[in-house]
Amino acid sequence: MAKNSPQKSAISPTRTEDYAQWYQEVVRAADLAENSPVRGCMVIKPWGYAIWENIQRALDAMFKATGHKNAYFPLFIPKSFLEKEAEHVEGFAKECAVVTHHRLIAGKEGGLIPDPEAELEEPLVVRPTSETIIGAAFAQWVQSYRDLPLLINQWANVVRWELRTRLFLRTTEFLWQEGHTAHATEAEAREETRKMLEVYATFAEEYMAMPVIRGPKTASERFPGAVDTYAIEAMMQDHKALQAGTSHFLGQNFAKASGIEFLDSDGQRRHAWTTSWGVSTRLVGGLIMSHADDDGLVLPPRLAPSHVVIWPVFRGDDTKPAILEAIDRLAKELRAQRFLDRSVEVETDLRDIGGGDKQWEWVKKGIPLRIEIGPRDVANGAAMVARRDRGPREKETLSFADLPRRVPELLAEIQSSLFEKALRTRDEHTQAIDERAAFDAYFTPKNAQKPEIHGGFALSHWCGSARCESELKDSLKVTIRCIPEYGIASCKAADRLDEAGVCVVCGQPSTRRVVFAKSY
Amino acid sequence: MAKNSPQKSAISPTRTEDYAQWYQEVVRAADLAENSPVRGCMVIKPWGYAIWENIQRALDAMFKATGHKNAYFPLFIPKSFLEKEAEHVEGFAKECAVVTHHRLIAGKEGGLIPDPEAELEEPLVVRPTSETIIGAAFAQWVQSYRDLPLLINQWANVVRWELRTRLFLRTTEFLWQEGHTAHATEAEAREETRKMLEVYATFAEEYMAMPVIRGPKTASERFPGAVDTYAIEAMMQDHKALQAGTSHFLGQNFAKASGIEFLDSDGQRRHAWTTSWGVSTRLVGGLIMSHADDDGLVLPPRLAPSHVVIWPVFRGDDTKPAILEAIDRLAKELRAQRFLDRSVEVETDLRDIGGGDKQWEWVKKGIPLRIEIGPRDVANGAAMVARRDRGPREKETLSFADLPRRVPELLAEIQSSLFEKALRTRDEHTQAIDERAAFDAYFTPKNAQKPEIHGGFALSHWCGSARCESELKDSLKVTIRCIPEYGIASCKAADRLDEAGVCVVCGQPSTRRVVFAKSY
Repeated sequence: MAKNSPQKSAISPTRTEDYAQWYQEVVRAADLAENSPVRGCMVIKPWGYAIWENIQRALDAMFKATGHKNAYFPLFIPKSFLEKEAEHVEGFAKECAVVTHHRLIAGKEGGLIPDPEAELEEPLVVRPTSETIIGAAFAQWVQSYRDLPLLINQWANVVRWELRTRLFLRTTEFLWQEGHTAHATEAEAREETRKMLEVYATFAEEYMAMPVIRGPKTASERFPGAVDTYAIEAMMQDHKALQAGTSHFLGQNFAKASGIEFLDSDGQRRHAWTTSWGVSTRLVGGLIMSHADDDGLVLPPRLAPSHVVIWPVFRGDDTKPAILEAIDRLAKELRAQRFLDRSVEVETDLRDIGGGDKQWEWVKKGIPLRIEIGPRDVANGAAMVARRDRGPREKETLSFADLPRRVPELLAEIQSSLFEKALRTRDEHTQAIDERAAFDAYFTPKNAQKPEIHGGFALSHWCGSARCESELKDSLKVTIRCIPEYGIASCKAADRLDEAGVCVVCGQPSTRRVVFAKSY
Repeated sequence: MAKNSPQKSAISPTRTEDYAQWYQEVVRAADLAENSPVRGCMVIKPWGYAIWENIQRALDAMFKATGHKNAYFPLFIPKSFLEKEAEHVEGFAKECAVVTHHRLIAGKEGGLIPDPEAELEEPLVVRPTSETIIGAAFAQWVQSYRDLPLLINQWANVVRWELRTRLFLRTTEFLWQEGHTAHATEAEAREETRKMLEVYATFAEEYMAMPVIRGPKTASERFPGAVDTYAIEAMMQDHKALQAGTSHFLGQNFAKASGIEFLDSDGQRRHAWTTSWGVSTRLVGGLIMSHADDDGLVLPPRLAPSHVVIWPVFRGDDTKPAILEAIDRLAKELRAQRFLDRSVEVETDLRDIGGGDKQWEWVKKGIPLRIEIGPRDVANGAAMVARRDRGPREKETLSFADLPRRVPELLAEIQSSLFEKALRTRDEHTQAIDERAAFDAYFTPKNAQKPEIHGGFALSHWCGSARCESELKDSLKVTIRCIPEYGIASCKAADRLDEAGVCVVCGQPSTRRVVFAKSY
């Protein structure tokens, strides 16, 4: 067994052996989620869902602090609504679940069939996103400039029919939040778009410990119907980019499509300016691929379902009561502590299974701190504490008296060590590249048997044409992740962002480098 | 205008004029929800959604305190899954949204049509409830008696195609939670069913201030596929019953249909025993119909989105700064107070609209306390406080020094006064009735023009036959709400529950009275 040999790891294959399979195995071993019998849909298990609940709680507070209110809109979108915005329908019609009937009846050959008598006059689409149905509501709610800005968020499930799915990263049904706002002026709507991008970036870095680059996407990567799309992009451990959140300035496109008009203070009727922005359960995938290692999940303490696990190590029955009492007392003391905006959360694992199995289970689940308490610890008034961001066998002895003070400090240390490590990885794999040959080599895996591990992010020049962009997409599967504005200064190569140069594809002049990468 | 005349009310029609219309008008005036362009689906607006968020927060804590964990399962249920349990499919096939295609394409006559090439091999049903899809997961998760009990809850949207809908009370899509548990023994599963019924009853009475009667339903009112269904039933102000929550003992029906088997401690393979239980956004309808009056919504403080609103009354510009400063200081002091498990939440309404309009808006929104501060109040160091559970013009003067201590006390007083009032209404309209003629008269409205206001709850004898039950349903639209076990002792008529007697329909002997009522 891997667990008994110091050379081996708890997850097999390892990241370098088979990155894609390693990811699936981490998800399985941490009991986060599984595929369901419904094609492309996942079951999110309690440990995985608790991470999502923590993501929700933190983001929801940030949305409310910036003046947004939650509401809820229908799951179904009439086909005619989707058709209102030309680019939007073009973007989503190809991948939507269509409801055509409202009843099943017994078929002639046994079993149920959709009742032909209960066919809908107009098919309904299960929402892939809600601009059009929320736009219809906004058109009712907004009459005067006094009704603006309208700052709404929705927590919901959405469906986009996907052919190739991967747990959390790309699933047919996923959970997300979608913000939708309407404003009286373009400037205000643009400010909102930026503000929410910044909320996402702050959340990604401070809660997920995941450094992100922020900036606008190119025209070809925009949300269908948007004037501008901004994104936060993070580097995963296979050096691919993950688009972790987007914020769209929609101009007046959806306001015109949905009829969101208002009487302005000067007596003129005008169309509103709208935005939308969202993050999804994909973030859980990003969290895994930012921090997990060859022993399994590693949770940033701010989003961990629980911070500390304590278990007993018994040596004969007569030591049990004292050990259990010590665990009980320590758990109570730790739970009385705060770690930033949460209480310290403690699991006590009293299951009657072997200590080795127990340890590895918690390692694989990624809990930040593990504490074992045996008879000698009770006698010494101290316990062995293991940090998930260190090797699985590395332990520190801390006295019961010190633990309540030290645990929140250790959690803060782990939180920042994970961020620093992820930042280091990203910066080490971000380069300014000017020659096409070097660019191709950078994105060509060194080992043909590990096609997923390649160079990383390339800061290169681009002339601005969609042709050069698609040439790289077709030949190397490399895309422009964003036109970086900030979040990248830690990287040395970023000093050269504003240099003038020539497009890495066509040689036409360029004033600024962009971020190229393979992506999820 | 109604608002200027003390005889008139803010909501028109009043409850006695047209109860159904009054309800719609309260929802509209409080800005809780509206009908959407999608048939039968509602838009839940921020003030309404905030009530639901408070319901979720309180229940979620109660579920977690009783050992349940949240998870998430697919929105779609393959048709074959629904077919696994005979009664279940019978109950839901008639009212489900069926997904048949996964793509739209341009049709020949313009516009989009479901792509015939993208028809699903097996139609998917949008979940009306999740026993079958969760059962499939449980069958994987449960191997041994050590895996039991499995205590899971899901917060989700569900769809049941409804022909006649009413905001919150009956909508095609609604939000709910559904608990699903599996146990090694029948006794444990039965205990769980009861425990969760009790959680619902506690929540209804302590948070919603809505007294409920608890007990099993008759066979004809059971959840499709359940062995026993228990419900909490509340009386609305039109004396109809609202089934506000249900808890089902499913026996081994779904375990057999889904293959939830485990190796027991004695080495035998056995089917698990399962339960399910749920409450939905229907609770918001129950909250409205329990407490709202002819001036609009009345919110129980524990679920109110906000507890206190403060607004200024200016007399000339020079008094403004002092008034605004007083409001700011008071709001801060109040927000530092606790009201049970929440902070006191305060709105300050500085909009430049008339004081009368402002007052009536907040009355209609049902906020528990309203505080106005004008120049004289600042000078006197005191403010006028109005309670929503008293007449709209009734006000009390409280000093700024006393307010931080008094506000949580006032909120607690309002919470219990609402419960007491609802309990009194219910008990006044609950009678033991033995003769069929009296029974018929009780359920016949006195005024033919107000067909909704009738007697109330009848505690009457029933022989136990489905025939007598359906006779009353057909003739009077009266059903047995439950076989009451507790939650009814406050009512005088309840002393006679255990008397022997004869069935009000057929005259056969009966050992116990049941609760008859019209219902939503």
